[in-house]
Formats: sequence, structure tokens, C-alpha cells
Amino acid sequence: MDRITSSLALYHAWVSSASRRVRFVLEEKELSYQGILVNLLAFEQHSPEYLALNPNGFVPTLVHDGQPVIESSVICEYLDEVHPSPSLRPAAPIARARMRVWAKWTDEVVIRAFQVANWNRMMAPTARTWSDEEVERRLKAVPVPDRREDWRRMAREPFSEAEIAHAVANIRRTLDRMEADLGRGPWLAGDTFSLADIHLSPYIVRLGEHEERGIRLADYPRCADWWGRLTSRPAFARARIEPVVFAA
Amino acid sequence: MDRITSSLALYHAWVSSASRRVRFVLEEKELSYQGILVNLLAFEQHSPEYLALNPNGFVPTLVHDGQPVIESSVICEYLDEVHPSPSLRPAAPIARARMRVWAKWTDEVVIRAFQVANWNRMMAPTARTWSDEEVERRLKAVPVPDRREDWRRMAREPFSEAEIAHAVANIRRTLDRMEADLGRGPWLAGDTFSLADIHLSPYIVRLGEHEERGIRLADYPRCADWWGRLTSRPAFARARIEPVVFAA
Repeated sequence: MDRITSSLALYHAWVSSASRRVRFVLEEKELSYQGILVNLLAFEQHSPEYLALNPNGFVPTLVHDGQPVIESSVICEYLDEVHPSPSLRPAAPIARARMRVWAKWTDEVVIRAFQVANWNRMMAPTARTWSDEEVERRLKAVPVPDRREDWRRMAREPFSEAEIAHAVANIRRTLDRMEADLGRGPWLAGDTFSLADIHLSPYIVRLGEHEERGIRLADYPRCADWWGRLTSRPAFARARIEPVVFAA
Repeated sequence: MDRITSSLALYHAWVSSASRRVRFVLEEKELSYQGILVNLLAFEQHSPEYLALNPNGFVPTLVHDGQPVIESSVICEYLDEVHPSPSLRPAAPIARARMRVWAKWTDEVVIRAFQVANWNRMMAPTARTWSDEEVERRLKAVPVPDRREDWRRMAREPFSEAEIAHAVANIRRTLDRMEADLGRGPWLAGDTFSLADIHLSPYIVRLGEHEERGIRLADYPRCADWWGRLTSRPAFARARIEPVVFAA
């Protein structure tokens, strides 16, 4: 990893959905920042150097004037507090509460649903080749017990069909809720574009991977319209929120 | 459930940890509100009437001027925005970010850890007596798929010893992190008492249930000191944050 040379630095990975949420905020605000790439395939996120900044071993981490800020949804609110213009949080407390409910739903339901639906394909092919010794060594480096268990699963006991079906149900439920909330205004928290819309974007961009499971954005007309408006924002392109490309 | 007769009403349950977090905030701010009890043992939280306010079927729900606000951590920030004095959020953005990291950790790790560690004892004795028809009927009423799976587990496949050990490891990890953060200031987010301290309180009060698993607050000196200061706040007693009493 590179060293920090700027007062605003983001440790991130291009394919990390959480990193994409923060990049989207940085680009909406047109902030200049130093991007420091964390090589996830080399497990740099579990290196002592990175864990000193982020004890969970997750990307991204923002470092602002030498102070680390972790957790993408927290980083996004932090950036809106220290650089309030243009505002990405609604002014009305009730709309702000709706925005935060979407942040929580993304963090607690959506991330897990896409992880379970995708990790067997993305992570298991590498992890299952590890020897027992390598599994043990790698798991020791994973600081969060739940994530350690996820990696053990990838190495030796991939997610079951029942678990994947459960994850797909949660993806559908997310689209149902989005469709309902978009009946109240053009954006997820109501009248204005906000962090709520940003939080969902790196997951919605990946829906195409689940078409064979019958999930199609076109079946959710308000979501499809919202997606067209969101992806036409100049910041979306600059933040590089693209479908993940798997190596063959 | 009673009807709303006040501009500020809280649907809650005395034993619900999430409800306790919101009651603590209401009492710190000395706000008068109408408490509406939701009978969890009668599954009133899954009734159509309640689901119209809270589509997740969780307690608590705040209703302010007719508008429902859900998710305890979101409700707490909402109350601090609409009733800012006394403030329960640090002024400095970096401390506010730390406060929000604790809110997330509570919601994503602590709640689950205590659920897995306790539900076999609290919920399974009732759920395992349900007939297959009753299981099916009750599960249909649970709106969130993950929670539906939890109830299926309680009825037919209680949490395993490995899952409980994993939960206990997460409780220990929480205390380690608290101990580290309390080295920076008297409260979890730094210099001032904040929502971070409130979020953890209804879980720390229950640590005594896990003494037989070797978890003792006295082994974490900064946490023990913090707990003494927190529990001596008048709002703590008024909010009725007590250890859960199990019926024999």
C-alpha cells in the first residue's frame, strides 16, 4: 500500500461495494483525495499496517488530517458534516431518519444478501485451494469473528442452496421496499438525492448477475426509473461503480 | 395495544433492549411521551396494526406528530435532532463518527451475540411446543426473512454450541473494544456522554447472565468504572434498564 501524502486519503478497492459508496460521496462533493489501493486478493486488508487503521480489516478507511474514520456509512455522514455542500442529507429530521434506515438496511441486509449470493463464485474458488495449514494461518489474520467464519465457509463449507435462496429473498424484499418508498418521492429518502440513494447503488449495479435467478430491475418500474436518473449523474461515472468482472 | 393520544408516542416493551435505548434518550432529555406497550409474548409486533407502522415487526417504534420512525439507533439520532438539548451527540465530527461506529457495532454484532447467547433459553421453550401448523402460521407473520429463520430455529433447531461460542467471542470482543476506547476519554465516543454509551447499556446490564461463561465486567476495569458512572445517572433508573427476569 502507498503512504499517506494528502490531508484526505481513502484506502479502498475498485471492486469493493463499500468503497464505491464513499467514492460516490467524494465525487458528488468534488473533493480531491488521495486514493490508496488495498489489494484484497493479497489480503492486505488483514495486514498489521492496515489493522492499525481499521481494526475490523474491512475496506474502506478514510484518513482525514491523520485521523482514521471507518465504516462506509459512517464515513459518508462524516464527509457530509465536514464538507456540507452540496448536502447529501435531507434537511428535515423525518427524511433524515428515512435515509438512515436505508443505510442500516444496506449494511445489515443488503451487504449480507449479496455476499451470500456471490461469494461462492467470487471467493470460494481461491479459498478452497488452501491447505489446512494455510486456512488456519489466514483465518488467524481475520479480526472479526463473523468474517472469519465466512472465510472458513469459503475454504471448506460453501454457502448452501437454502442460504442462497434466503439471500435472494432478501434482495427481492429490498427491491419491494425501494419500490414502495419511491412512491413517496423521486429519491429513496423523499424529495432530494441523498446518501440513501448512494448506499444502494453499488448493489443495484450488480443485479444483472442475478438475472438467472429471475431478479430483473425492469420488474420494478419506479426502481428502474430511479436507476436511470442515478446513473446519469456525472459523479456516478467518476466514482467507477461498475458491475464486477470475474476473471474467467 | 393502546391508541395514540399524544404527539410523542413510543411503542415499546419493558424487556426489549432496543426499547430501552430509546427510553434512556427520552429520560435524559426529560421528554414526556405516551408509552404504548407491545405484548411480545402475544406476538403483537407481528399484527397487521403494528406492521403498518413498522414493516419489520420490531419494537420500538416512535410516532411523532403522526409520523412513524423505526430502528432504535435511528430513533435516538432523530430525537437528538428534534430535541437537541441536552445534546447526546458530540460536537466534533470525528467523535460523532466514533459514536456512530458504536451504534453500528451494537446493531450488527452485539444484538446478534446476545440473541444467540440467550434465545435458546428465552424463546425456545415456548416455540418448541408449537405444532407444525402453528410454526407455519407464526412464521408467515414474521416479515423479515432473517428473523423468520431465527423463529424457525427456536421452534425446531435451536442454536448450536458452536454458534453460542461464536456469540460469546463477540461479547468478549465488544468488551475489549470498549476497554480500548475508554482509554481515550471517560465515555465511549470521547469526552462527553453520548448515544454510544446509551446504545451499549441494555446489553452490558445483562452480562451477569453470562458469568457462568467466564465473562465478568470486573475483568475490564475501565468498563467497570464507566458502568458505575452510567448507572448512577438519574435517567438510567427512570428508563428501567434492568436485567431481564425469566419466569421460572
